[in-house]
Formats: sequence, C-alpha cells, structure tokens
Amino acid sequence: MTPQTAAKKHVDHIICARWVIPVRPRNLLHHHAMAVSEGRIVAIGPQEDILNAYTAAEVTTLNQHVLMPGFVNAHTHAAMTLMRGLADDLPLMTWLNEHIWPVEGRFVSPEFVRMGTELAIAEMLRGGTTTFNDMYFFPEAAALSAQDMGMRAHIGHVIIDFPTAYAANADACLQAAADLLPRLRQLPLIRQSLAPHAPYTVADAGLRGTRELAEAEQLPIHMHVHETAYEVDEALAQHGQRPLARLAALDLLNPRFLAVHMTQLDDSDLSLCRESGLHIAHCPESNLKLGSGIAPVARIRRQGIGLAIGTDGAASNNDLDMLGELRTAALLAKGISNDPTAFPAWEALEAATLGGAQAIGWGDRIGSLEIGKAADCIAISLDHPATFPVYDPVSQVAYCAGRDQITHVWVEGKIRISQGQAVDWETSALFRRAQEWVKRIRERDQNP
Amino acid sequence: MTPQTAAKKHVDHIICARWVIPVRPRNLLHHHAMAVSEGRIVAIGPQEDILNAYTAAEVTTLNQHVLMPGFVNAHTHAAMTLMRGLADDLPLMTWLNEHIWPVEGRFVSPEFVRMGTELAIAEMLRGGTTTFNDMYFFPEAAALSAQDMGMRAHIGHVIIDFPTAYAANADACLQAAADLLPRLRQLPLIRQSLAPHAPYTVADAGLRGTRELAEAEQLPIHMHVHETAYEVDEALAQHGQRPLARLAALDLLNPRFLAVHMTQLDDSDLSLCRESGLHIAHCPESNLKLGSGIAPVARIRRQGIGLAIGTDGAASNNDLDMLGELRTAALLAKGISNDPTAFPAWEALEAATLGGAQAIGWGDRIGSLEIGKAADCIAISLDHPATFPVYDPVSQVAYCAGRDQITHVWVEGKIRISQGQAVDWETSALFRRAQEWVKRIRERDQNP
Repeated sequence: MTPQTAAKKHVDHIICARWVIPVRPRNLLHHHAMAVSEGRIVAIGPQEDILNAYTAAEVTTLNQHVLMPGFVNAHTHAAMTLMRGLADDLPLMTWLNEHIWPVEGRFVSPEFVRMGTELAIAEMLRGGTTTFNDMYFFPEAAALSAQDMGMRAHIGHVIIDFPTAYAANADACLQAAADLLPRLRQLPLIRQSLAPHAPYTVADAGLRGTRELAEAEQLPIHMHVHETAYEVDEALAQHGQRPLARLAALDLLNPRFLAVHMTQLDDSDLSLCRESGLHIAHCPESNLKLGSGIAPVARIRRQGIGLAIGTDGAASNNDLDMLGELRTAALLAKGISNDPTAFPAWEALEAATLGGAQAIGWGDRIGSLEIGKAADCIAISLDHPATFPVYDPVSQVAYCAGRDQITHVWVEGKIRISQGQAVDWETSALFRRAQEWVKRIRERDQNP
Repeated sequence: MTPQTAAKKHVDHIICARWVIPVRPRNLLHHHAMAVSEGRIVAIGPQEDILNAYTAAEVTTLNQHVLMPGFVNAHTHAAMTLMRGLADDLPLMTWLNEHIWPVEGRFVSPEFVRMGTELAIAEMLRGGTTTFNDMYFFPEAAALSAQDMGMRAHIGHVIIDFPTAYAANADACLQAAADLLPRLRQLPLIRQSLAPHAPYTVADAGLRGTRELAEAEQLPIHMHVHETAYEVDEALAQHGQRPLARLAALDLLNPRFLAVHMTQLDDSDLSLCRESGLHIAHCPESNLKLGSGIAPVARIRRQGIGLAIGTDGAASNNDLDMLGELRTAALLAKGISNDPTAFPAWEALEAATLGGAQAIGWGDRIGSLEIGKAADCIAISLDHPATFPVYDPVSQVAYCAGRDQITHVWVEGKIRISQGQAVDWETSALFRRAQEWVKRIRERDQNP
C-alpha cells in the first residue's frame, strides 16, 4: 500500500455522476461524486477530489446520468393500489358508494393492506420514490411492508369518526395509534404521524384528541383539507366556518401540520397557512381526475408556504409516478396562472424532494444530497431520445424524463433498484401473490 | 401438407394479443388476433379462428399486451427537437425573441430540419406514434426523414408573411409548396397539407392564396388558431373580428381545416366549428407550459366537434410522448370542468388515434384497427407495477401506462420498434451526428 493510498479514508460506496442535482444548495454540479458510508452521505465534490480522498468497496460510474435525491411522495393511500382502475370516469359519489367503499368494507384487513402496500412500493421504488407519506387503515401492515422492502415511510395513523373494519370511531382510532406508536418506533425506516381523515369526517372531539396525542408524542399531523368547493360550502353551512378556520380554532395548525389537496384557498386561508407555518401537499393529478379543483400553486409559492407533491392513491390518479406528478404540477401551475415563469423546473424538483421531506418533519435526514443526510438517492439516465439534447439537465428531468429512465435507486445507501429492476424481489412473484385478491375484488365489484 | 392446411390462406404476419383495442368499433377484444398482408389488416378475430383460417410467415404472440392503433400526433414542429430545453420557464416573448427566433434565424436549413426531424422520429416511434402532422420550414427535409425512417407523416407546407431562411413571404411560400407538391406525392408514407402559420402572421392575401391552392390540389389546411387570449384581443383591436370569424369570412373553414390550440372559444366560435365541420388539435401540455390558456375539451366534445391531440414541438412541451399527452388531456378536461366523467379513457384514446387520423383527412387508412386499413399499430405490455392489476385495460392505457411499456410498433405492417428498441437505426449514432448541431446551437444561444 503506498503512503498516498494509506492516507485515503475508506467508505462503503462512491457514486460518480455526469450531473448531480443536490436540490440544496440549488446548484447543478458537473462530473461530481458522492461518498457514502453506513447509509449516510460523507462527501460530495469533483470526481477527482473524491477519488483522491476516498477508497470504496464499490464505485458506481454513471456517465450519462443525473444523480439526485429520491422523491418524497407526500400523500398516498398505498394499499389502494389493489383497486387501481377498478372504476374510472364516474361521478365522485358513484365511484365511492358503488365501488371503493363496498370493496373496502368487504376486504380491508391487515393482509389486504400488506398486499396493496407491497404493490405500491414496487411501483414507487422503481419510479424513484424513496419515501412515502401514507394514510390508511391498519398502519402497522403498511409500516411492515415498507420496512421489509427497504423503503422509507411516514405512516399515518388514520382517525375517522365512522366505524370501519379498522376501528369503531375516532376514540378507538386514537387508542389504536397510542398502542402502536412504540412498536413502530422500533422500525428504523419508519416515522409516524396522526392522520385525521378530513374536517368533515372527524368531529371536534376527535380533533382535540388528535391534538393532545400529537403534542404528547411530538407527532406531525397529516390531513385532507379543502379538497373540494363542496367541502368548504358544506362546512360553512354546518359550522359557519371554513374548514381551515375551524382547524385553526382547534389549535391544530403549526409547522408540523400537513394539509393535503387545498384546492380552495381564499385570502384568509392563505394567511392562516402563512402564519401557522403549515405545509401543503399538492396532488394535481388526483384533483384533476376527480374534478376536485386545482390548488393555486403560484400563489402558494409567492406566500412562501411550504409545498410538497403527492400522487394520492392509485385509485384516483392512477399511477404513483412522482416524475409524472411533478411535471403535471409544473405545467398546471403555469397553465392556470397564465404565467410560463410560474413554478419553474428547479422549484418543482425541490417540492418533490426536499419540500416533501420538510412537510413531514424529515428535512433533517432526507430530501437533498447534503453531507450527513441519508443516501436516499436516484440516478436518471438522460441517454434517451426523449431527453436529447441536454442543454439543461434540470429542465430535462422536470419536463421530459420518463420513469423508465430511472436506473438506480438507493435508500439509506442500499441499492433497491439497479438497471431499472428491483434487486430484492421478483415482480412477477409479487403479482402472482396479489392475483387472488384481484380476483375476489373483481367478483365483488361486479356482483355487489 | 394436410387438406386443412392447404385450405388456409397465407398472410405475412399474425399478431395475437391478450387484449385488442381496435378504437373503432369501441369494443375491448380478449385473446384476439390480427392478420396482416402487404401492410394492410386482413382480418381480426378470436385467436383460434384466425390461426385456423390463416398461415403466416411470422406469428407474434403478446400474452400480456394491448394491441391498438399507433398514435397520430396531430401537431408537431418536429425539427424543433434540436432546441428542446434550450430555454424554459421564461416569459413567452423572452423565450421567442432571445432564444428560439435567433437560433432559428441562424441555423434553420434543410440539414437542420433533417437532423431535428430524425431525432423527433426516433422519440415518437419509440413512444408509439406512427403518424405525425408537421408544420415547419423546409418541409421536403421533414418528409424525406419520415419516409427514410419508415414513419408516416402529414407534412405541412408552411406559409408565413415575414421573411425567413425558407422563403421571403407568403407568396414565395405558396410557390414553394406548389413546386414541391408533385415531388412529395411520390413518397408512399407521406401526405401533404398547407400550413398557414397563424391568423396574425398571414394577411388576407396569403390566406386567399392558401385557399385557392388547397382547393385546386385538394389539400387539408393546418393552422394555429386562438392559441392565446392576446391573439384574440389583438385581432379584435386590429380587424374588429375574432380570428376564427375572419377565417370563416375568408371561406377557409371546412372539414379539411385543422385548427390547432383553440384555447379561446366563445359560443360564436363553437358554432363556427360545428357548422363548418373543422377539426381541433388540442395540445394541452404546450398550452399549459406556455401559459397560453386551456381548450374547453368537454364543451368541444359535447358539440360533436372532431378532436385530435398533439404534442406541439419539443421546445414547448418538452416531450413528444402521445401517451403522456392523452393522459394530460383526459385529466385536464375533468379538472377544468369539475366533472370526473368528462373526456373518459375511451374518448382520449380515440382522440389520440382515430381523431387525429380524421383531423388530417387520413381516417380512411389509419387511426383504428379495421379490415382494409394500414397495419399501423402498437403493443403495450401491461406487465408492469404501474399497470397492475388490470381490471380495465383501456383505463390502464389511458391513466397508467408509460411509454416504456410500448414494446412493438409497426407502420404499414413493418416492424419499427421491437422490445422497445429501434429496429432500423442505432440511437447512439443518431445522437453522435446531432451533437455537432447541439454544440453550435448552445454556443450561439450563450453568445448571441
């Protein structure tokens, strides 16, 4: 061993990439490399410098790729992947009353959630999502799926007034959450939140209980808010208050509150958002598909409100493709504001990564490629007819690249997708296991 | 040879697929097969029947695939692929004045058009588009690229008042078109149209000349109309007339007129569309990205007006992905009408195939899988985490499938893409040839 080599520090892995988009700082780096040890980012610098300073058990060279943080999908109902495409193009209440709710009523169980979440994870990891923020019944099943498949997840304990297969009422949901919290804290890839379903499905008592438990356990809150104009109108008729104002009066709004959808925002709502420091999860494709409304992203950004992007569940999107979702968000923000400078490529990438991490209180650990953060990252090959020529890699990722161009995905430094294929499971075997559920769901849906 | 075999009719190719979406009729067929001879569809029926009735030199079996017509991209400026991502997120006039027009002014030539169109074709064929409807300078170069690469194209002879590298004025454009028409008629995959650029760039004289030549030569007309509110307002100020009304007064509107964009449509415009029988090409992603406005698809469909879908050029989209474009169209139509039943999956697939074919007067030959039509078709594998489970293949194609799931593309029965790869060219060699152009364009853009 030469003295020079001896002086080098050893790391687990060095990734060299033609371009690195760390997201924070907002710089495009050329011919840089990242050193990773024990799942954390140790160094980022010009390839020569990194290769001179470190030796590694493994060196990955990505000459035609962008290296960037993995996507944080800020709103999912992962298990609903089992109901993807079951019933589309229907009026909202027909879709819910005649398809989604009857199937859920019949089948939802820990096993259903486990199976559906595994399918969702297979899709999400392959599409470059390394963390998802979930809200569904039987959260332990979702948490175990994520931990077992090596995906990071923020698991919401759902709270809802009406009886389901999961719990009898909001109190029972809160009790289930309190009971489960310590167990899920043992899972290293998992953090937790409380997830009151929506203002119209949780009465004040349940929301007060949510606030108390959230404060006691220092948990973020994840909730659908202002999804439709109907929701706001009904609340005004019933409570004489807009739903967000009611949540503010119940003292729920703060920087650990993530409001999902938010398609209806008047000036008073925007003030509440800004003053409370809450974050917004924008789900453009679900909102479009269900005709719910369109969140005013340009105005949200101008107010400095934290913005994340989510796909929502596969039953209402219908994919869990964050690259597609951030593109839709970037295009739609310009379209509805008649302003081609609104929500530019850099901001869309940031919302889909760091914005999501911050929205779920995980900005200390993920969402950007910075020293000390977890090596949750992806490589996107720009060697494809859809991304040629490359004048600007940031623009190519935001506006042209397809999920198929995502070649590598690492979570906490461990490779999960390599050359576009799952490393740890056979996708065909996953499908075979799911097929029995699919058959029963189809039968039930066709013979209610 | 047994008597039974002797009785079978011989065809070139039989394609067996798990699902067939012929588009017209609007039926989903299970386990069907299509027999193809000399580039034409000879028969479609249950696999057993087809295999009993025909022998073929080649049988392709697609057990997890949808077989459907190739997409018709109803509006492109293919050569602009060389400027993809050159300048994004800018105000419209900055983008045009400081980037697109200077680059075009410096470089546009038959060689530039040829190179840019080849790149566009490589992307479009791989994404399942089998026909594109183009409008750009030096149309012969685009036509030759398409014919040589085995893609079907409808080539518009651009007509514009102001001087360009291509022609001095509208008269010169019309003369160039008249001269070129007989030559391009020799190319079997090519048909032609006249393409007056827009109401605000062609004065009445040029439009009268366009109408005369179109009538004399029985050519369709392809034109940007009502792209922005600004265009309509300016026309009202200058001519006291909305642009579409002016075109109607000039007797240009009829079933062979394709109006592109049409984001601004009042009741009088919709009446003109309906009464004239013109077709509309909807380019949702370009319209969103440039903040141009949003075409009211639900109202257009309710009026029974022919609707096609186009990507526009790669400089303003930024991809040429028809699967993505039809999805954006389907989602956006619901979103802006607050109606989840608007523009359902079947209609979006139809607009992206048969709607496009009819819009360019080619509905007799392409756009659906019907006996006698050309075998312009694609296979989409649904064996992917994004399209599992398959309750409804039509919904999966419209709302979930990615362009990477398109495995096979045939134009006039000839295979162009197989297992996702181009059969006839090396994509890397294409990129290498283009790189010299890219370098010069980048230098020019950075040092104007």
